[in-house]
Formats: sequence, C-alpha cells, structure tokens
Amino acid sequence: MTFNDPIDRRGTRSSKWDKMEALFGVSAVDGLAMWTADSDYPTAPCVIEALRQAADLGVFGYSWEYPEYLAAVKWWMRNRHGWDVDTDWILTSQGLGNAIALCLDVWSKPGDGAVIFTPVYHEFAAKIKKTGREVVECPLVREGDTYALDLDDAQSRLSGTEKLLIWCSPQNPSGRIWTGDELRAVAGFAARNGLILISDEIHHDLIMPGNSFVPMDIASPGTRANAVYLTAASKTFNIAGQRTGNMIIPDADLRAAMRKRLSTLDYAPSALGVRMIEAAYSPEGADWVDGQIRHLDGNRRLFDDAIASIPGLWSMPLQATYLAWVDFSGAGMDDPEIEKRLRVDARIATSPGVGFGTGGRQFQRFNLATQRYRVEEACNRLREAFSDLQ
Amino acid sequence: MTFNDPIDRRGTRSSKWDKMEALFGVSAVDGLAMWTADSDYPTAPCVIEALRQAADLGVFGYSWEYPEYLAAVKWWMRNRHGWDVDTDWILTSQGLGNAIALCLDVWSKPGDGAVIFTPVYHEFAAKIKKTGREVVECPLVREGDTYALDLDDAQSRLSGTEKLLIWCSPQNPSGRIWTGDELRAVAGFAARNGLILISDEIHHDLIMPGNSFVPMDIASPGTRANAVYLTAASKTFNIAGQRTGNMIIPDADLRAAMRKRLSTLDYAPSALGVRMIEAAYSPEGADWVDGQIRHLDGNRRLFDDAIASIPGLWSMPLQATYLAWVDFSGAGMDDPEIEKRLRVDARIATSPGVGFGTGGRQFQRFNLATQRYRVEEACNRLREAFSDLQ
Ligand SMILES: Cc1ncc(COP(=O)(O)O)c(C=O)c1O
Ligand SMILES: Cc1ncc(COP(=O)(O)O)c(C=O)c1O
Repeated sequence: MTFNDPIDRRGTRSSKWDKMEALFGVSAVDGLAMWTADSDYPTAPCVIEALRQAADLGVFGYSWEYPEYLAAVKWWMRNRHGWDVDTDWILTSQGLGNAIALCLDVWSKPGDGAVIFTPVYHEFAAKIKKTGREVVECPLVREGDTYALDLDDAQSRLSGTEKLLIWCSPQNPSGRIWTGDELRAVAGFAARNGLILISDEIHHDLIMPGNSFVPMDIASPGTRANAVYLTAASKTFNIAGQRTGNMIIPDADLRAAMRKRLSTLDYAPSALGVRMIEAAYSPEGADWVDGQIRHLDGNRRLFDDAIASIPGLWSMPLQATYLAWVDFSGAGMDDPEIEKRLRVDARIATSPGVGFGTGGRQFQRFNLATQRYRVEEACNRLREAFSDLQ
Repeated sequence: MTFNDPIDRRGTRSSKWDKMEALFGVSAVDGLAMWTADSDYPTAPCVIEALRQAADLGVFGYSWEYPEYLAAVKWWMRNRHGWDVDTDWILTSQGLGNAIALCLDVWSKPGDGAVIFTPVYHEFAAKIKKTGREVVECPLVREGDTYALDLDDAQSRLSGTEKLLIWCSPQNPSGRIWTGDELRAVAGFAARNGLILISDEIHHDLIMPGNSFVPMDIASPGTRANAVYLTAASKTFNIAGQRTGNMIIPDADLRAAMRKRLSTLDYAPSALGVRMIEAAYSPEGADWVDGQIRHLDGNRRLFDDAIASIPGLWSMPLQATYLAWVDFSGAGMDDPEIEKRLRVDARIATSPGVGFGTGGRQFQRFNLATQRYRVEEACNRLREAFSDLQ
C-alpha cells in the first residue's frame, strides 16, 4: 500500500467524505474532499497490525495508560524532536480539541479572555466562545511571503482579564514553523501578562524537507512553569477518529490541577486509541512518517505550481502540515464568488478562510493529505474554474 | 471460539489481569482475576469482524454519531427490551462512569447531595465524592434472600440539598432485578424530593433465565420528564475498554443541558467505539448474547453450589449480571481474615464488599464472566481455603 493507491472513503463513516454534500453542497459522486484535517490514505502498517492483534485476541476489557504506552510517547519526543519528556508529565485527553476545552475549563472562568493569533485553527475561537470565555484576537501580520507576530499590537489588545494564550506551532492554517526567537518572544509575552501558555504542537511531525521544528519547551525551557504542551499522533498517523491525544505538563501544580479535572470527569482513554499510539510511536512508525513527508512534499509542489500558474491566486509556502493556505484576493472576487467556483464549478470542498478569524477573508485552506492523482485532479479543476483569469 | 476456550489475558494490557498483583498481591502466575467487571472471553464475532473491516480500510480519520449507529441503538432497545427510544434522545458519552460524572457536573454543584442505595457499585460514591458532592447513603434492607427498599428510612436521611438519585438497575453487586412496583416507588421518591433520576441500566442485557428486566422508562413512563437513562454495550459485549456508552434522555430540556456540556468539553465519541456498538446491536449480536447468558447461567449454578457446600458462606441468588455477591458473615471471620484466605490461600482477587458502602462488610463480589474451568478452579480453591468450616 502506498500513499497513492486509490481508496474510496465514501460510505465508510468518514466525516470528511460522508458529510461533504450536506455541509458544502459538493456531491461525493465526483467531489473532492479537501477540507477537514484527516488523510485519505491508510495509517502506518505497524498501527494496523496492532489493531489486528487486538482483534485476534477479541477481548476489549478495561485497560489504562500502561508503562509501555508512556514509554512510547517519551521515545517519540526524544527521537523525533530531541525533547526530553518525563513519563510523569504525560496525561491523556480525548484528543486535542477536548484538551483545549479542558484547559479553558481548568484555568479560566466564564467571562475571562483567551488570546489567539489569527488566522488560526478555527476551533480555538469556537471552544473559547462555547465555554463562555472571550476571544481576544491578535492578528498576525503578513511579512514577505509568510506571517509574523506583532506583539506590541497584541499587547494593546489585552484588557487584563486574559488567562490563557492558545498558541499553534507549527501553525494551522499557514503551515508556518516559528523560529526559536519567535517562540521566546511569545513565551515572554505570555509570562509578562500572566497567561498560561497552551502550545498546541499537533502538527509537529509533518515538517517539509529543508525545515526544522523546535518545540516550545526546548526554545524556552523556563516557560514550562506556566505551560501545557499538546501533542498527538492523530494528524501524523491519521488516527484522529480515536479521539486520543496527550497533554504534556512539566509543572507539578498545573499537572495536578488537570489530573484532578480528568479524575472528576472520570476520564480514561480508549484502550484501542492507546494501543494505536503505542504502535505508532516506534521506529517503524517513524520510517512511515518519513515516507509520508516525501509524499506530502510532492503533493504540495504540484499544488503550489498549479496555484502559481493561475494569475491572482497565491499559496503560502508550506513549511509544515498538509494544509495549503491559498490567497484568492488577487483574483478580484468576493468570498461567495470564490466559493461558488470552488464548490459548484470545481466540485472541491475546502475550509473557508473566514472561519480562521481576522485575516482569513478571501483565503481558502486546502487539505493535501490525499493521493497524488486527487491533487492533480484538483489542480486541473482549479485551472479550469479560474481559467478566465488567464 | 466458545466461552470456554482458554485465553491468557496476562500481558495484554488488561487492568483486570495485569494490575492484579499490584492491587491485591495476587500473582498473575497462578492467580484468578475475579474482580473488575469485564469478561475473559472474546466479544461477539460480528463486533470483531467490524474491527477487522476497519483495519482492512486502515484509515482512522474523523467520524461522528452517524445515523446507522443511532438506528442500531434504537433497534436494540426495541428488540431486546421492548423499549421505544427516539434516535434524538441518544447522546454518547465516554462510558457510563463518565456519564455519571457529567450528570453530577450538569445537575448539581459542590456541596449538593446525591442519593444512592447501598451496597451499590462503588464508583457511584467515588464519583460523588470526587466531584465535591455529598454522598447520601440509603441502606437496602435484607428481605429473605435478597435486598429490598426502605423508602421511609431513605426519606429520613434526606436534608433537602439533594439534587440527584443515582439508581442501579439491574443492581450491582447484588444481581437484583427490581420489579415494576419497586421502580415506580423509587421514581415516586425521586419526584417527591425533586431529584433527577439517573437510572444506570448498564447490566440490563445479562438477565438470567427465568427472570425478566423492565426498563425504568417502561415501568414508570411519567418519570422521563426528570430522568436520564444510562445504557451501554460495554458489559454485554465486553468492550468497556473503548469507553463508549449512551445517555438516553427523553426530556428536551435535560437533553439540551447535557448536549451543551458535551459540546463545551468538545466531546466526540471514539470512531471504533461507535463502530463496535453498531455491530454489536444487531441480530448476530443478540444471538451471541443469548449464548453468553447460557454460559453465565452454568457458571453461576456451579459457583452457587460450591458456595452452598461451604458452611457459613452464602451467595445471593443472581437474577442478572455476572457478579456474584457472597456473604461470608456466617463464617465468623473479619474482613482481613476473609481476604487473607482469598488472596493468599485461594489466590483469587475479588472486589471487597466494604467498597460498596454500608451493608458490604464481610461480603465479597466475584466476577463469573470467565471460562467454566476457571470457575471450577475457583470453587476448588474456595473449598480448600475454607475447609476448616466443614
Ligand atoms: C492545531 C490543531 N489542534 C487541534 C486539532 C484537533 O485535534 P483533535 O482531533 O485531537 O481534537 C486540530 C485538527 O485539525 C488542529 O489543527
Ligand atoms: C452499574 C455500573 N455502572 C457503570 C459502570 C462503568 O461503566 P463504564 O466502564 O462505561 O465507565 C459499571 C462497571 O462495572 C457498573 O457496574
């Protein structure tokens, strides 16, 4: 099985494919699902094998966060990221959306503010609002062909009620990898303002060739007194459906507070989720990820070339993630027109940029974690749908 | 595969087997795990097959509570329990321990009371305490060879701060099935005292031959204005490790409150958990459960005969569940002596009765959901460990 073997996910209870028509009006008959962030190809063989072994035993009783699982998480952080994590620091949440919601629950109360830098993963703002907290949006600024921070501007937006900063590194939707200096600047900003720094590093494994990622905890070790690091195998290995992620919390007091909340909710992770992560975070898993990165790098080159060939369209150079952030503003169209062309003419479901907050207007996010032939087809359809720009 | 084929669960990340030595001092080398409530035999072939199909596809992206899943839950309640459930009423929690914790979270605040009838599943009191609520224990009374309710006594124990009644039906640890009259009496008690009735019916499928179970919602339809019904495939199909259960809430306001809480926590069920439940709640699953019940009925006859042959020991007649509730009080021993004989002499790990609250002293709960040969071995070891009583 390679990343290019055809797979039909329609009718497999996949949100990305089976909800596409209802949400976007793009029929699954000939539509392309390039919205929600999961991949169209199978996970690593070692993960599938772990599941088959579980099926062979056939007994699915109670399990727990057993030592081999914690050791696998630790191994991955050490071997893939040069990051030394103590197994004691590792808590398991029901995925990172849940982890963010729990952080808001534990470290703020309704009415408090939570700071985000936009455009950013739409669920940050969604969760802040759902829990009755206030979204404090600090816009990123366009500098050259990427985004940069304006922390003076950010400072001016704070009212003093803020409790958390929810940070995305590498960044979704821009695919930006922050430098060590930028990470230290953000950590300093959080410290100066008494904010707990939630560093969501879910995309840390999918780093495009030529780039390198630094975990916040390595860039700014002092920050750990006030930080929660979120990691998961869910994007890297395409196992998001299992709703299992990690909160890595070096500080004992912060960790005790979160542990208590998990305990009052009687939270325990899915046994199969834990098994799949244990299998993923292994040398075999690492090799598979390397292959996936090569595949994604090929996809994004193809995609970027196609976008570059359409006057008025522009895609931000992807340093990490499989999410392409495309600027349509040069095409002189408003969002309804852009989306009409994408959905009706090209029959492609993408994530509209406005959902990512200030700065997202006239952008669309394209998920490239699919077979090469599907990316090619998307490129052809885009060229055609926007052929009048030629 | 039958219920009697030997299976070695040691080293399979099973809490029941792999934590036994640490928790009870009973070595897994030759110990018998008869404590936590999961089964030692594989689940239904249709459930394993669903998992294999998922492994064959190999893609584990985002899913949701899709219509076929909700339809399967509805089908099961209709076909196995004669209970008409609207698919709209079905919410999915991360297992029923989590569901109970969420109910406490939504419908009470720290310091409020929650009523339980003891001895009962130890986690009811544990969750009430963990969430900072007060346990209001109302003892069941021994009547003939089973337990009965004393609602006048219960009434006298209430202080007015109680918000919830957490009810267990069929009852763990006694295996008691409540009659329609008893259910209506409890529902009336809850209504008179303004309590939300959480009816935990997790054991509703494992009904011993000659008995029949009535869901609270059928016994007392009017109660649904103030009730939350908890059901799961986890005990019935031995899939508790997947942490997936259902909260069936007919009342629109109660349901909206719980839905909101699930949404603020960004709760979404495990895709494989949902798949396994969909496969379980089927005609094939129903046939398998019928076979399991015959197996369990054989186990409990064997076990009860052995207990009856030991002077001073007595087991409560099991109407439902696979949990035998054994009274050692006639043996003239205190709990440390009983447990020493069980753990050191018989090398059996059981759940101590004191954990189940008032009325549990000198009782032990034995999990009989295992191969027949293991029950036989347990019987032999018990006869020997208590041979001085002959
Ligand atoms: C930055 C970021 N955090 C969190 C998530 C969601 O994680 P989960 O599926 O574990 O809730 C995503 C998914 O796209 C993401 O991009
Ligand atoms: C009455 C009762 N409720 C709930 C549970 C736990 O359910 P879950 O594993 O879904 O948390 C049990 C497990 O033994 C039980 O006996």
